[in-house]
Amino acid sequence: MSAETAGKVIKCRAAICWAPRKPLTIEEVEVDTPKVGEVRVKVVANGVCHSDLHVYKGDYENVEIRLKYPCILGHEAAGIVESIGEGVTSVSPGDHVITFFNAQCGECAFCKNPKTNMCLTRISDEEVMPDNQTRFKLNGKSVYHFCGISSLSEFIVLSEFKVGKINPKARLDRACIFSCGFATGYGSVVNLAKVEPNSKVAVWGMGTVGLSAVYGAYKSKAAIIIGVDTNDEKMEIAKKMGCTHFINPLKCKEENKTVVEAIKELTDGFGVDYAFDCVGHASCVRQAFDSTPIWGTTVVVGVSSPENKLSLDPNEFLYGKKLMGALLGGYKPRDCIPALVQEYVDGKHDIIENLFTGSVTLDEVDDAFQWLIQGKVLRTVVRY
Amino acid sequence: MSAETAGKVIKCRAAICWAPRKPLTIEEVEVDTPKVGEVRVKVVANGVCHSDLHVYKGDYENVEIRLKYPCILGHEAAGIVESIGEGVTSVSPGDHVITFFNAQCGECAFCKNPKTNMCLTRISDEEVMPDNQTRFKLNGKSVYHFCGISSLSEFIVLSEFKVGKINPKARLDRACIFSCGFATGYGSVVNLAKVEPNSKVAVWGMGTVGLSAVYGAYKSKAAIIIGVDTNDEKMEIAKKMGCTHFINPLKCKEENKTVVEAIKELTDGFGVDYAFDCVGHASCVRQAFDSTPIWGTTVVVGVSSPENKLSLDPNEFLYGKKLMGALLGGYKPRDCIPALVQEYVDGKHDIIENLFTGSVTLDEVDDAFQWLIQGKVLRTVVRY
Repeated sequence: MSAETAGKVIKCRAAICWAPRKPLTIEEVEVDTPKVGEVRVKVVANGVCHSDLHVYKGDYENVEIRLKYPCILGHEAAGIVESIGEGVTSVSPGDHVITFFNAQCGECAFCKNPKTNMCLTRISDEEVMPDNQTRFKLNGKSVYHFCGISSLSEFIVLSEFKVGKINPKARLDRACIFSCGFATGYGSVVNLAKVEPNSKVAVWGMGTVGLSAVYGAYKSKAAIIIGVDTNDEKMEIAKKMGCTHFINPLKCKEENKTVVEAIKELTDGFGVDYAFDCVGHASCVRQAFDSTPIWGTTVVVGVSSPENKLSLDPNEFLYGKKLMGALLGGYKPRDCIPALVQEYVDGKHDIIENLFTGSVTLDEVDDAFQWLIQGKVLRTVVRY
Repeated sequence: MSAETAGKVIKCRAAICWAPRKPLTIEEVEVDTPKVGEVRVKVVANGVCHSDLHVYKGDYENVEIRLKYPCILGHEAAGIVESIGEGVTSVSPGDHVITFFNAQCGECAFCKNPKTNMCLTRISDEEVMPDNQTRFKLNGKSVYHFCGISSLSEFIVLSEFKVGKINPKARLDRACIFSCGFATGYGSVVNLAKVEPNSKVAVWGMGTVGLSAVYGAYKSKAAIIIGVDTNDEKMEIAKKMGCTHFINPLKCKEENKTVVEAIKELTDGFGVDYAFDCVGHASCVRQAFDSTPIWGTTVVVGVSSPENKLSLDPNEFLYGKKLMGALLGGYKPRDCIPALVQEYVDGKHDIIENLFTGSVTLDEVDDAFQWLIQGKVLRTVVRY
C-alpha cells in the first residue's frame, strides 16, 4: 500500500462537521502528505465518543478550546500506518497503531516528569498543525483537525507522538477503545487513584468511560462498587461490568432521599473511599465529594461545562479528603496504552466486548451521533 | 506526687476564657479525678497556638464547632501524668506526655484505617467529656474544655487516647510544639504530601506552622522553597528555616504583579509542584492552587473561615492537579509523634529553637495572646 500512495496527496472520504448541530456529511477530501515528524494513517476503526458529540452538539461554544469549522471529528481510532514523514523513527508503514489526543514525545520537560501525561510538543486540541496549516482540503479549502486526529476520515495525518504502535494481533475494531474511552475510565481507577482491594467505590455516569471505571474497580477487587445513572436501562450492563449496586438519582428523588444518603446507606454510613465523576458536571462532582468519608478521594474524569463551578469550603479538606483528576486515566499514552492493548490480546479484558453496541459505515456516522444523544448506545464503531 | 493527690480533686490555677474578645483571667479551679480511660496530667509547658487565638478573638462564632464559655483554652502541651483513671493501660503516673487534639484509640474503624488520623472514640473539639460533664469547676460551676485538653490549667484531665508518651529526656518546654504546630506544618510536607527531592515548594503564612512546613520542605531536599507572607520581618526566620525565596504579596501589588505571577517567575514559568496554605483563607488556597502547574498538589493546612468559599471549575483538575489537606500533618498522633520527639532528642530538629520567641508565666498568658495578634511572636511558651 505505502509504495503506491506514499509521497502523494490521497483522495478519500471523510465526515465533515460544518457547524454545531448540523448533520455530518460525507465528502471527498484531499489528505496531504505527512510533514516532518508526522505520519499518515489509514483508519480502520473509530469509536464515536462523547467528546466528539460535545462538538457536534455545540457544547464547547463558550469554552476556550481550539476549534474551527468545518472540521473532521473523531479521535478514538485504530489503523495502519500508510506512510511517514521526515524524521519519524518510532513507527513504520504497515504498523498497527492507535491514536492519542495527548502526545508523548518522551523528551520534553513534561514527558520527563512522571507526574503529568501531557506533552509540550503538541497540544491536545490541535485544530491546525504546528505550521498553522491543516492537512485536509475540501474543494481546495482547508478543513480543520479535531484533537490533531480527525479520524472520521479514511486517511489522516497526525504527529508521530500521537500514535502508539500496538500488537497487530489486536482486532482494530476493538483496540480503538483503548485510545480514549476505556483507558480514561479504567486508568482513572487503577493508574490514577490506585484503588486498593476491599475499597468502596462509586461511579457517576454509566457510559463507556464510567463502565470502564467500574471494571477498573472490579479488577482492583473493590468490595462495593456503586453505579449512579439516571437511566435504569444501564443497570444490567453496570452489573455486568462489576457494579454491586446501582443508584438512580431520579428514584432517590421520588423516595425523598439524596444520592449521598443512598450511598451512605450502602456503606455503613461513612460513604465510599473513592468517588469518580464520569458524567462531567460540577453537581455530580459535588455529590461525589459529599459521598466520601473524611479520608475519601474524589476523582474528576468527565469534562464539565465550565460555567458550573464547584463551591468548596477549604476546611472540607482538613480531615483528609482529596480531589484530583486526569485525562486519559493519567497514562503516559505511548508508554502505557499499547501495554493495555497487549493485555487485551492476552485475553485479560474480554469484558470490553460489552461496551461495543454496534457498528456503522462512514455513511451512517450521523446516526451514531444521534444514538449517543439518545443514550441508546455505548460505543458505536465506524468501520472503514 | 501521685501518691498525695491521686484520687482527690486538685485545686490549681487556670486561665479562664469568659467570652470572645475578653481578657483571660487566672482563677483557682477544681480539677476532678480522671474517670474511666482518662488521665490527669500536671502541665509543664504550653505553646500558645493560633487555634486558641481563634477562640479568644471569636473567629469561630459562626462556625459549627463545639465551644462553650467559660472555658479553658490550650491544647499544645507537655507535662507529666499525675494519676490515671480506671482501665488506663498505655501510660502511668510519672510518664512524660504531650497532648493531641485528635485521639487515637488504636481499635476503632478510623484508627485501623491508614487513610485517616481521626478516631471515633473522642472528637477533636470536645467541650465536655463523653459523660456530658466537665472535669473543671470554678466556684462550683462547670468550666468547659477546649479540644478536650484545656492545657492553660496547671492540671488537666483528658482521654488517655489524647496523650502520647515521650522520652523523658525531651525538654518539655520544647516537646510541646510537637503536640500541634510543628507536627502540623512539618507533617503536611513530609507525611501527607510527601514532597520529593528537587521539588519546588511554596508556603503561605510564615507562622509556626508555615515555618515548620518550610523546614519539612528543606528536609525533603526541595530545590526551591518560597515563603509567602505580608510581613517582611518574617523574611529572616523564613530563610533560616529553609526558604530560598520570600514573596511579600503587598510588594507584588505595588509592582502590579500577582503572587502567582511572582511565583511563576521563580519557577521557569510553570509554578511550584507543591503549594501549602498555612494561613487558612480561601483566597490563599486559590493562590496556592493557581501557583501550581498542571501536575501540582495544593495542600490545605490552615483552618479557614468557612464563609469564604473556594470556587473551582472541575475541569481545572483534568490535567492532573490535586487538592488535599489534613489536620496534624496527617499523623496518627500516638503512633507517629512521640517518634518525632525522639528525633528531636537525637538532635535532628535543633532548628525548632528558632520557633520559640519567648516564654511567660500563667499570669502573663493574656500578653502572649496579644503578641500573637500583633504578629510579633511565633511560639510563646507558658511555663508552669
